[in-house]
Amino acid sequence: MHDASDILLTLFIIFVAAQIGGEIAQRLRLPAVVGEIAAGCAIGPSALGWLHIDQIASGTPIDVLAEIGVILLLFSVGLETRLDDLKKVGRSAFMVGVLGVVIPFLMGSLWAHGSGFDWVKSMFVAAAFVATSAGITARVLQELGVLQRQEARIILGAAVIDDILAMLLLGVVSSLQDGGALDVKSLAFTLLGAVGFIAVIGWGGTKVMRRGSGWLDKPSNPMSPLAIVLALCLGLAFLSTRFGLAAIIGAFLAGMIASESRQRDDLEHQTAPLLAFLTPFFFVVTGAKVNLEELADGKALLMLLVVTVIAIVSKLAGGFLGALSLGRRGAAIVGFGMVPRGEVGVVIASLGLAAGVFNEQIYAIIVAMSLLTAMVTPPILSLLLRKDKD
Amino acid sequence: MHDASDILLTLFIIFVAAQIGGEIAQRLRLPAVVGEIAAGCAIGPSALGWLHIDQIASGTPIDVLAEIGVILLLFSVGLETRLDDLKKVGRSAFMVGVLGVVIPFLMGSLWAHGSGFDWVKSMFVAAAFVATSAGITARVLQELGVLQRQEARIILGAAVIDDILAMLLLGVVSSLQDGGALDVKSLAFTLLGAVGFIAVIGWGGTKVMRRGSGWLDKPSNPMSPLAIVLALCLGLAFLSTRFGLAAIIGAFLAGMIASESRQRDDLEHQTAPLLAFLTPFFFVVTGAKVNLEELADGKALLMLLVVTVIAIVSKLAGGFLGALSLGRRGAAIVGFGMVPRGEVGVVIASLGLAAGVFNEQIYAIIVAMSLLTAMVTPPILSLLLRKDKD
Repeated sequence: MHDASDILLTLFIIFVAAQIGGEIAQRLRLPAVVGEIAAGCAIGPSALGWLHIDQIASGTPIDVLAEIGVILLLFSVGLETRLDDLKKVGRSAFMVGVLGVVIPFLMGSLWAHGSGFDWVKSMFVAAAFVATSAGITARVLQELGVLQRQEARIILGAAVIDDILAMLLLGVVSSLQDGGALDVKSLAFTLLGAVGFIAVIGWGGTKVMRRGSGWLDKPSNPMSPLAIVLALCLGLAFLSTRFGLAAIIGAFLAGMIASESRQRDDLEHQTAPLLAFLTPFFFVVTGAKVNLEELADGKALLMLLVVTVIAIVSKLAGGFLGALSLGRRGAAIVGFGMVPRGEVGVVIASLGLAAGVFNEQIYAIIVAMSLLTAMVTPPILSLLLRKDKD
Repeated sequence: MHDASDILLTLFIIFVAAQIGGEIAQRLRLPAVVGEIAAGCAIGPSALGWLHIDQIASGTPIDVLAEIGVILLLFSVGLETRLDDLKKVGRSAFMVGVLGVVIPFLMGSLWAHGSGFDWVKSMFVAAAFVATSAGITARVLQELGVLQRQEARIILGAAVIDDILAMLLLGVVSSLQDGGALDVKSLAFTLLGAVGFIAVIGWGGTKVMRRGSGWLDKPSNPMSPLAIVLALCLGLAFLSTRFGLAAIIGAFLAGMIASESRQRDDLEHQTAPLLAFLTPFFFVVTGAKVNLEELADGKALLMLLVVTVIAIVSKLAGGFLGALSLGRRGAAIVGFGMVPRGEVGVVIASLGLAAGVFNEQIYAIIVAMSLLTAMVTPPILSLLLRKDKD
């Protein structure tokens, strides 16, 4: 019984911290999500310690709740996104996705090599610089109610492409690190699988749903349209991990498919309470994962600063160049929208740590860089988008 | 990354199984919850095995989701319950709660002693017979839309009293089993603490909320009334475990407090999607916990039958006698409403198993009895209530 009691206390603390952090942020005219991440940092293991490191480790109940939270978030973003609208921005999204991977990877490799890593290890470090975390940007865009703008669509499309490329890059650096030769054939298959999965599900799913969605109302359960699309969401989130992609890609596709149904408005209303309850766990856990202690000396802080600047500038440049057709402000919005790094970078960093490619400090720096990019982006994005509204 | 993938698959399987089970049950004119429990039994460790025993153990992510599910369920039941209405049935609820504990405890002790246990052990076994699980009855009442009926209120009030008494009983049998003398003083303090907690929170909370609930809209978060009451729900669920009560008692109180706010209707609408997503985990896990293998011989099955009949008859008698003022049909509804056993019985049984009071088989029988009482009740209840409607 006491286990259950402890976990309830933890859930309570996380949830309340998120609400307080979000409220403070909004009073400061910052997006709520910044406050939620900061709250996680504050109650996390290296500050107040109300949240222990083993409570947020991978596979723990809190971590699973956080994962469900971000999955539902991207599902709801998908609900507001039509495939046809995405197609219209396909070219720009592709450019943004590709440049947003290539430039950070090049700059990251150069910096790491300059700091004394050999080339193979440098590529490993650089790989952790690459992957955009769509969750944070998506939340900001949703908070501001601008998911229908062209920039938002480009960012979402680019995030999908970004995730495919990051996965391939991870394959490349892992095999190089193992000392093996590059298995181009297997990489090609991986690429084909991922692209095929997205194309078949995205295309086929929306087609089926457009033909008619009355069947969503058939079951006796009065909440059944929601229950069916939530099942789709969990199923596609799972499937996309089997194709080497992030779970949120599948969730996004599920939302996009559901957006073609005629129950779409109901679904949007019903998803809101789910987000209100579950996404705070994701953002608080994101914030709590930073180990401030490893960063508590001047050299580490300087390195963190350099790494963060490189991470921001390189991604901004990639996004900006890729979206130049939108004009300068639009390109800047897209560029900043791609800046937040997240779980994938942390996953690559943990692999690097486990493989002995780098030490605890570099690991802490990469995690902190992910957090900083996540904290810096929302205010800038909100400023650019609000100005645009006036 | 593979951990995350596995857990997503499990979530998907549980959720889909619940939907299919619920649908089949409703087509058979049974409450959906019966189908969800049966689905859990089917995919559980001792049947299909799609859900492993270590995936649903206490403290695992799935178990925590299940716990959150039942907490939200009782919260939403609380939302449909006014304190003033509960007070009106206070006397009957008290009688039902007390008789519904005393009669099963006496009959359980007699049976256990008759089967060869000494008196102290018999009382331990009997204690596992006692506690009503409000979750299943509440769900059935909600499905049928009869939470406003007097019988429903008596059942809910009695479930609170029942939980207090079960906790005290657990204290008594544990100290007897340890060979210690009964510490009446400490039991009195426990009782005082639990009753005080419920009285102060239930009374004080509703009073505060009645005075005005405009402050729920104060925060910038547009979902803030919901977020605040969910925080209250988690907080009171935690606190009630600290007073030795089940988490769902605190959640019920939180819902009852929220029901006094003027945002009540919005809150009810917003809670529905949360229930649709999370309660299936509770009912599927409930079903999955039964170990069919331990029951696979004639003697065990006979014992299960006897135990289940005693459990049903004794609780029915207690509830019926306590609620006789409602007339026969009303008393029968209350009596059957109290029949389902749940987590508390299983917790007592695990303590008994750990303390060596009884063996794996008796443990399996008690768990299976909980499940059977849970499966038998909904159809009878739904029959009695539907007939009454016509």
